[in-house]
Amino acid sequence: MNDPYDVVWLHGTLRPAAAARIAPDDRGLLLADGLFETMHAHAGRITRLSRHATRLAGSAHALGLAPPPSADDIARIAAELLAARNIDGAGQHAVLRLTLTRGARDPAAPGTRPARGLELPRPESFRPTLLVTADALAIRPFEAPRASAIFSRHPVVRGPLARHKTLDYTSAVQARREARHAGADLALRRNEDGRIAGADAANLFVVKHGRLWTPPLAEGAKAGTVRAALLSTADALGFTPVVAPVTVPDLYAADLALLTNALYGVRPLARVGGRSIGDDAADANVVARLRDALDLDPCR
Amino acid sequence: MNDPYDVVWLHGTLRPAAAARIAPDDRGLLLADGLFETMHAHAGRITRLSRHATRLAGSAHALGLAPPPSADDIARIAAELLAARNIDGAGQHAVLRLTLTRGARDPAAPGTRPARGLELPRPESFRPTLLVTADALAIRPFEAPRASAIFSRHPVVRGPLARHKTLDYTSAVQARREARHAGADLALRRNEDGRIAGADAANLFVVKHGRLWTPPLAEGAKAGTVRAALLSTADALGFTPVVAPVTVPDLYAADLALLTNALYGVRPLARVGGRSIGDDAADANVVARLRDALDLDPCR
Repeated sequence: MNDPYDVVWLHGTLRPAAAARIAPDDRGLLLADGLFETMHAHAGRITRLSRHATRLAGSAHALGLAPPPSADDIARIAAELLAARNIDGAGQHAVLRLTLTRGARDPAAPGTRPARGLELPRPESFRPTLLVTADALAIRPFEAPRASAIFSRHPVVRGPLARHKTLDYTSAVQARREARHAGADLALRRNEDGRIAGADAANLFVVKHGRLWTPPLAEGAKAGTVRAALLSTADALGFTPVVAPVTVPDLYAADLALLTNALYGVRPLARVGGRSIGDDAADANVVARLRDALDLDPCR
Repeated sequence: MNDPYDVVWLHGTLRPAAAARIAPDDRGLLLADGLFETMHAHAGRITRLSRHATRLAGSAHALGLAPPPSADDIARIAAELLAARNIDGAGQHAVLRLTLTRGARDPAAPGTRPARGLELPRPESFRPTLLVTADALAIRPFEAPRASAIFSRHPVVRGPLARHKTLDYTSAVQARREARHAGADLALRRNEDGRIAGADAANLFVVKHGRLWTPPLAEGAKAGTVRAALLSTADALGFTPVVAPVTVPDLYAADLALLTNALYGVRPLARVGGRSIGDDAADANVVARLRDALDLDPCR
């Protein structure tokens, strides 16, 4: 399907995607030296923008990247881009991806040599890359069908970087590939001790005896925006939030299992490796309650 | 220093770097979905080309990427590129970096929608990205000064992908950044059990009682080309090759410690976290013997 509105935000302005150029020495490409945010927008406005902007700023600082755009800047870029793409109307849902890399040689500072290998470039000769793309979202949040998963054989690493949405998604791509080969929707990922960290592109929650239970960041979980919102507001809807390690038997013994991310909000996980978890009616009921919980999130 | 010979190989031809365009939907940029090789060249010829080409082909197959260029193709590209850069003369040493990604939407198949997120694109609408860059090498192999290192707090992950040179170098960049902050040249990296996997951009060998000892791939080591060459030929020079886990006390108790990669070949590691290992004269002697060992490598 041809898309005449194929426009991206790059280097401070809207550009036709076909004319948008990432330099071949961009550190994002060569070394996954950067971050990204995947955000939901409705009618031109980003959902949980302050959580995304705060996480991005914190992660950029941790990595030693240039300060990223503020929440206001992101909102402005998103509004321009969604309008240019014609996906900012009432009732229109969209996905935004913001990619921030350490960048490439500044074309305004010609003659500077590329930084070799891992060595950090001098900031004065380097220009960070900020790329934002948008697309219509086919499935609205909280309406994604119940998912099936397998366990990936690719472990997540724990450590100081694990929580950040860094660009190093090589193993997540391979995990998803395993899932598709096995006929499943997605892959769950474990750490090297075999406990569950989350899914390939989502956080995992286990519901058991009214507890809403998710693996700690120290287990290799990403600091997801919906994860944080649920932890901060679930008790208002009658759930006890719990952050504690989740084993494979814990998952199989759950009343329900849920996936969360910025795009689908909350999505039931119906089957893992051929075993059923939860049931359709109970899942739908809990998803509806958690949708209400997210409405209470102060970080809109 | 201005470089009039700033030329890269991209999408099948030589191009001025300033005109070479990586598409903003390239999976290498967005998801680190790809591989790279860093290669040494002397007088226009790639060192250990067959090891690089074989590793690249094996890793591309493991990741489900399109078949990469053959050794002959890589040699041809390198020869053209090194000539265009004027760094293919007798006595000239150069570094080549080959980057292979799953690619981006094929401009010859307009109108195809981008693959969303982790989902693999249909190959018929996608074009793999092959980027090759070259630069003069300031330090010849086997002449790098003795190095100092720290231990990084960023663990390597073990698992099926660890051995491959995938693009997910986010944590290696951060490890190097830690080292530089601490005034060291580079960082050693450990797995989650605290044993040493290697350095941020090199393999580690420990020399002890005539054994040339390096961590197994299962410990998180990369399948380095010089590592493989040394393991296959060291015994011809009187070393016993050993592939076994290396602990921090093992390193401190070593007679010598050595770093290996395609660019500097073998480089003594003189200091780790303030502790000295080996000594200058003994290091130089072993480096000279290993240089001779590499000359015996059948995979030139």
